[in-house]
Amino acid sequence: MAITVCFSVFLLVNILQLNALPAFEYNQTSTVIVPKSIGQPWPMPAKYSSNSDLYSINSENFKFIPTGESCDVLYQAFVRYRRILFGRDQEVLKFKPHGKHSKAGSFDILYVNQLNRCDTYPSLNSDESYTLSANASGLHLQANSVWGALRGLETFSEIVYQLDDGTFVINGTAISDVPRFKHRGLLLDTSRHYLSLKTIKDNLDAMAQVKYNVFHWHIVDDQSFPYQSSMFPTMSQEGAFDQRHIYSQSDIKSIIEYARLRGIRVIPEFDSPDKYIHLGGDEVSFSCEIFYRKSNPDITKFMAGKTNKQKKKKKWGFASNYSRLGEYYSRSILLDIISDLKKGYIIWQEVIDNGATVSIGSADTVVEVWKSGYPAELEKITKLGYQTILSSCWYLNYIKYGSDWLPYYMCDPHNFNGTAKQKELVVGGEACMWGEYVDDTNLMSRTWPRASVVAERLWSAVDSISDTAGVQNRLEEHRCRMVKRGFPAESINGPGFCRDEFVPHE
Amino acid sequence: MAITVCFSVFLLVNILQLNALPAFEYNQTSTVIVPKSIGQPWPMPAKYSSNSDLYSINSENFKFIPTGESCDVLYQAFVRYRRILFGRDQEVLKFKPHGKHSKAGSFDILYVNQLNRCDTYPSLNSDESYTLSANASGLHLQANSVWGALRGLETFSEIVYQLDDGTFVINGTAISDVPRFKHRGLLLDTSRHYLSLKTIKDNLDAMAQVKYNVFHWHIVDDQSFPYQSSMFPTMSQEGAFDQRHIYSQSDIKSIIEYARLRGIRVIPEFDSPDKYIHLGGDEVSFSCEIFYRKSNPDITKFMAGKTNKQKKKKKWGFASNYSRLGEYYSRSILLDIISDLKKGYIIWQEVIDNGATVSIGSADTVVEVWKSGYPAELEKITKLGYQTILSSCWYLNYIKYGSDWLPYYMCDPHNFNGTAKQKELVVGGEACMWGEYVDDTNLMSRTWPRASVVAERLWSAVDSISDTAGVQNRLEEHRCRMVKRGFPAESINGPGFCRDEFVPHE
Repeated sequence: MAITVCFSVFLLVNILQLNALPAFEYNQTSTVIVPKSIGQPWPMPAKYSSNSDLYSINSENFKFIPTGESCDVLYQAFVRYRRILFGRDQEVLKFKPHGKHSKAGSFDILYVNQLNRCDTYPSLNSDESYTLSANASGLHLQANSVWGALRGLETFSEIVYQLDDGTFVINGTAISDVPRFKHRGLLLDTSRHYLSLKTIKDNLDAMAQVKYNVFHWHIVDDQSFPYQSSMFPTMSQEGAFDQRHIYSQSDIKSIIEYARLRGIRVIPEFDSPDKYIHLGGDEVSFSCEIFYRKSNPDITKFMAGKTNKQKKKKKWGFASNYSRLGEYYSRSILLDIISDLKKGYIIWQEVIDNGATVSIGSADTVVEVWKSGYPAELEKITKLGYQTILSSCWYLNYIKYGSDWLPYYMCDPHNFNGTAKQKELVVGGEACMWGEYVDDTNLMSRTWPRASVVAERLWSAVDSISDTAGVQNRLEEHRCRMVKRGFPAESINGPGFCRDEFVPHE
Repeated sequence: MAITVCFSVFLLVNILQLNALPAFEYNQTSTVIVPKSIGQPWPMPAKYSSNSDLYSINSENFKFIPTGESCDVLYQAFVRYRRILFGRDQEVLKFKPHGKHSKAGSFDILYVNQLNRCDTYPSLNSDESYTLSANASGLHLQANSVWGALRGLETFSEIVYQLDDGTFVINGTAISDVPRFKHRGLLLDTSRHYLSLKTIKDNLDAMAQVKYNVFHWHIVDDQSFPYQSSMFPTMSQEGAFDQRHIYSQSDIKSIIEYARLRGIRVIPEFDSPDKYIHLGGDEVSFSCEIFYRKSNPDITKFMAGKTNKQKKKKKWGFASNYSRLGEYYSRSILLDIISDLKKGYIIWQEVIDNGATVSIGSADTVVEVWKSGYPAELEKITKLGYQTILSSCWYLNYIKYGSDWLPYYMCDPHNFNGTAKQKELVVGGEACMWGEYVDDTNLMSRTWPRASVVAERLWSAVDSISDTAGVQNRLEEHRCRMVKRGFPAESINGPGFCRDEFVPHE
């Protein structure tokens, strides 16, 4: 024995009895999840077929060649996906080919035919459809818009995989894809805890991987006001946790641009009961701003210049600005103004529940249903003619022990009584990660891959995801693909492993 | 408006009603936790007093000077703590001095008087006591053993803090400290999911920060066998998830050394019902080894050389070694052998519950109580004369939504009916992080700072930690200190912030 004294003087003998344990006690009857899915996409495309023809991919000289319209969004995506696919630290997983395969050819080009001129920014009605094929005639991606091209590039990056000998391959594949819902959102909350730009951007990358298209940014709330307004900088000077916990105008610009390049809209939320809102103004990135938050005595005091800190430092509040706000004092006026400005808006369900005089003329009005009893609420909201999105069943911040993803997965926004026309008014949903117990230490691992489950529910056709065992296998592959790309996506199916595990920060 | 088209077409109007929500629904009545504790240690020392004298610390030229015995463990700790205290990326938190202070002097030396020759390895009976003082005569740390000196250095690194102007300071302080329990353990499980060496070492650093002294390594189990035996390499070749999910002999050596330098014992566990164990042998680091696991048909098959993989590759199992094992076939023989070898051992409570013929002559026999109903079990075990440790109430893998640390904190190993002599037989306890749902993506954030709560319960005198509000304040400071040192210790008290937040991996 080379080292005899170096070691423990104890030997732990475990003769656990596993049967008949009380509920509290430890049950270790779990089984090991072995990855069975290889080169399968997440979320599942609307129409997807693959065969045993196996084409090798020349990773050294691989090119994306645009054959239609092009623009910065597309070119930057080519750079990004080349790194994701073949980058030294971003290699796709190595596997044996599954099933029986025939070597059918070798490709080094993905032709990307984007038919229309690029939009600068994505919108609710962006066309995200695409077709993707790998067959004897080569690799072809076609889309009506650049946003569809982005979705197709992501899918391409998932169905390419690596054999044990290092070869990148793709099976013969035909995909025709279109999202089931057009609003697929994820809410992060930077009020209860601050999130760094790095974490927000990582999260946007993860969102792009599962085709989310809305970042609902709950940027401020009673707990803190990290938004640094250019018109009213004192707002964050007094309302943020401290001056290192702030989003500057340039920070926000960088987030919006990062999201845009990934086909993701950023929707900020400035909330309060009985709020007064300033619309327009000269903020670089947000077109609306809250002035006054009746619900929060501290901010009310602050705006009146009456906090102890202000008194001490003889700083001024916003008293002098109240006159400018006088005209915006009722909710209905607020909503009319938004309507006049041709801005769409989302309102929480209470606005409707309380019978507010909401101007519902705008096609962009969307009501977010978040309380329990959502089927009845969806029925009611759509009967009134509103568009709606659902988040009731997707509060991912409510964690519990064990595998919890299946209920999220099984929740369906069409699960209510209503006509076909009513169902059409459901434009999507949102997963929510409220911030009471998450910050930069755990946001990513707690959100992912759990939020991916909601993303598939919102993207994939119902009949394409009915095979639950298949779903679990694909979800395992998907989690490992996230881990391989550098996201700390946690284990959610019990004991197991990824071929390439997450590499902790050195 | 500098950027008009760049932004969302939606405005989210939130007029949440917070009253009378059903249980499922979202309750955002939480308040913000503002750090109130400054320069307070965790865990609380047995005797601790500080005053308003404020001494500045010369960080540029600060030295640790040993005035008694010394050795590599101490010198390496000096290097480590200098970096923790003053390293550019490891600065202590900046604060205003709390209360009324008088500038009382400036110091650039901590005198470390370690009275006895260094032990090479810590043991159950190591003396971890120390005294630490900051007063007009300077900074002085005294300990009987190097392990006590390590504990004192950690405390010193926590009570030094930084003013807004950058000055490092320490209040006049008198500490006389000794742990309440001598076995303070944390269990990690590398069988359900593999953990990288980086994560295990990070965890050992975090353990040292809260004065844990036992790393209970649940290294193998039915789910995987990552331990690479030098005598029987086939064991991990067949039993590990794959060959990248293995701990080599040199990996294990490095973990043991890393732990030793921090005064932490590594206790491996090789468990099974009805096991056969090889003791001795030529493994570099573990002095025991499991040969045969009757509970696992795969391993049984494997040992007989009957797995499909073995058949396919014509590999041999361990059939030829069975004869060597013949003599070790009953539990009582096993325990007698351990006893003969002068090795201590820990057994789970079932060994006693089942009335096994355990040789209890050894002073090193320790019974681990892990099931519910622990007060009755502790009473029974100690009445039988065994030493015991408790883990029943500290299964940290069982997560739930919200702040969950108080029940862990309130659980006390002396909470049972028994004589003073029985209470003395309780030598400590262990927090457990079983591995079903943790791996490198989330192990650290899920374990910390929650495991710190158990560490204080096991270290601190009961009367020194009865002020629960004070505990929460110190816990917040402690979490932020962990974050500042680079650990992703998650938020556990609701909305709030650390002056220096965790920096995500770039």
